[in-house]
Amino acid sequence: MTRHYLDFASTAPLRREAASAINEWLALGITADPGRPFHEARVVSDAIERARTSLATLIGARPRQVIFTSGGTESANWASYAAHVQNPAAPIACTAVEHSAVRISSERLAPTVLNIPVDGVGRIDLDALGELLSNRDRLPALVHCQLANHEVGTIQPIAEVVAQCHLAGVPVHVDACSAVGQIPIDAGALEADYLSLSGHKFGAPTGIGALVVGRGTRPAPLLVGGDQERARRAGMEPVLAIIGLGAVAESIGTPNALETAAERARAETARLVKAALAVDGVVEYGDPIDRLPHLVCFGVPGVEAEGVVLGLDQAGIAVHSGSACSSESIVPSPVLQAMGVDADRSLRCSVGWSTDEADIEAFERAFTKVVGALRELGR
Amino acid sequence: MTRHYLDFASTAPLRREAASAINEWLALGITADPGRPFHEARVVSDAIERARTSLATLIGARPRQVIFTSGGTESANWASYAAHVQNPAAPIACTAVEHSAVRISSERLAPTVLNIPVDGVGRIDLDALGELLSNRDRLPALVHCQLANHEVGTIQPIAEVVAQCHLAGVPVHVDACSAVGQIPIDAGALEADYLSLSGHKFGAPTGIGALVVGRGTRPAPLLVGGDQERARRAGMEPVLAIIGLGAVAESIGTPNALETAAERARAETARLVKAALAVDGVVEYGDPIDRLPHLVCFGVPGVEAEGVVLGLDQAGIAVHSGSACSSESIVPSPVLQAMGVDADRSLRCSVGWSTDEADIEAFERAFTKVVGALRELGR
Repeated sequence: MTRHYLDFASTAPLRREAASAINEWLALGITADPGRPFHEARVVSDAIERARTSLATLIGARPRQVIFTSGGTESANWASYAAHVQNPAAPIACTAVEHSAVRISSERLAPTVLNIPVDGVGRIDLDALGELLSNRDRLPALVHCQLANHEVGTIQPIAEVVAQCHLAGVPVHVDACSAVGQIPIDAGALEADYLSLSGHKFGAPTGIGALVVGRGTRPAPLLVGGDQERARRAGMEPVLAIIGLGAVAESIGTPNALETAAERARAETARLVKAALAVDGVVEYGDPIDRLPHLVCFGVPGVEAEGVVLGLDQAGIAVHSGSACSSESIVPSPVLQAMGVDADRSLRCSVGWSTDEADIEAFERAFTKVVGALRELGR
Repeated sequence: MTRHYLDFASTAPLRREAASAINEWLALGITADPGRPFHEARVVSDAIERARTSLATLIGARPRQVIFTSGGTESANWASYAAHVQNPAAPIACTAVEHSAVRISSERLAPTVLNIPVDGVGRIDLDALGELLSNRDRLPALVHCQLANHEVGTIQPIAEVVAQCHLAGVPVHVDACSAVGQIPIDAGALEADYLSLSGHKFGAPTGIGALVVGRGTRPAPLLVGGDQERARRAGMEPVLAIIGLGAVAESIGTPNALETAAERARAETARLVKAALAVDGVVEYGDPIDRLPHLVCFGVPGVEAEGVVLGLDQAGIAVHSGSACSSESIVPSPVLQAMGVDADRSLRCSVGWSTDEADIEAFERAFTKVVGALRELGR
């Protein structure tokens, strides 16, 4: 059966540029610890630095600001840790819609986690942030605010968030995992103290990400031992994944590449929205306009989200439910709970570089049928 | 110029089995979050579990004991962390020759690090360990003892170490990064609470390793935020690296594969030793018999180690100096210091699957010349 993959926001299929670059690297057949002073090591080191420069260029940072990690989860854990050790007695603040890696890493470290509420589309309440920052006796060690939400796509007013925090002397971590590679980002202008990104969210291999640090920020290492990454992150570099990431960054970093892809993604997700909203009771979650172009989230009342995911899978379509199945029980989506909408019955569809007409048509054809059949069963 | 790579103990060139498996996987073109309930995810999940089983079989563990990490450094950091949070007021004990990832992660967490001395070949002083464990009022939260040393290859009496520690009720972390893939290991019989391994040390890709936990050991996660690895290690799995690791484990896990490779490595390193010891003043470090078969370490008096490494590089040969160049200064090797030998002038040569006659001959030809020329310059 032809498959239709509409779960790019979980992980994007590996881009051809990444696969080619990895194939070429494998054919070259060179491995070495890039920290050594001999020929093979320099070849590896050059490849890593080229990838770092490509990634830095894509996001408007300087190469030395980019520290490679094993992925977005490590980056988010590290941001929490680095801020916490700077200011261990202080609380950490999180918007109510942060990823679990951000929230749980904060809860584990800080004596208190301060919650910054969001509105009905998941956008941060800037007044609440202002109030939180006005309490000079209890300033947080860090404010976590994502660039755009991973479940509903809503884009945060991140420049204002950073400006407010810096005015109060509070560092900011911008979780940009869902946004990098989807919309243009200028990390240099943003001046976040910490910015996380994850390669597999935009077509690079899994197992590679970065923590991008503000100029002058010297984070306490999360992983210690070796002098890799300018002694900021110990551990041998994941060379294949870095090479794949670099190739993707180069490819999507060309002028207008992101904008063109975003325009196409927006047209595709508009069709998914239209098809979904044609079903009785289905609603769209998140900001319908100011959102990531490649993902849309729906509430589907009257059915179990898991059933819709499985029903679409049988029709050859891969989508995601924000109400994740954790072990044996269905856990409501904390993001949707924070937005005050039905957190038990959401569906997220997301598109990307390999999405074609057939994928969209498959969803258009199948969604009504699958929901209809499930509702029929539930009567 | 033909190159001769004799630095397998830093990182082994990627084995052909790994490259083939990765190429096949790339050609298959499937990416998905393995935690999702749809078709593509199951394909990825199956590939990961197959690799886990292959690795578990190689080391005599059960698959569920194997937790994939980003590498040996993360595994070692995690072992220190997991033991520390179980017993935060207790010291952590390290043999004097542990890797920096073990030592520094312990120093950062524990109120005190207890040092377990080694003898002149780097072997743990079991009496000193016994004495340390007899102080019931100050039992460590963890004893770190490597399976074999990364610089001189000396194999530790690890079964005795684990038995002594367990008799005292103290958990053990066995850093097996240098040993896995070189000598047979039976993690099931060893019963260590934590065992670290690193894929790139035996021909798998960089960026993948594992923490192997004892049966019933539930380590506090180092990275939090997702339910990956049975909710023990959050973060998207590095799929390409895992597939490469699995292919290597399958290949070297066949009957007698390790023993055959070890025999060849022992013959090759014996020739390197002979060539090195032919030079005036050169000595061999570590246990000459009970050591890892693939690596040998020499003291080369009268010359800077860095000079020998660079001189050999110019002759097409890649070797390592234990006296690592950290930023601009040469740092003496802590391992050799602990053994009480000259820690400033060591050279490590190591061989592996792709080593051939020409590599050994190149060293035999070049070593005397390079050392002679450097000594001449130094007069």
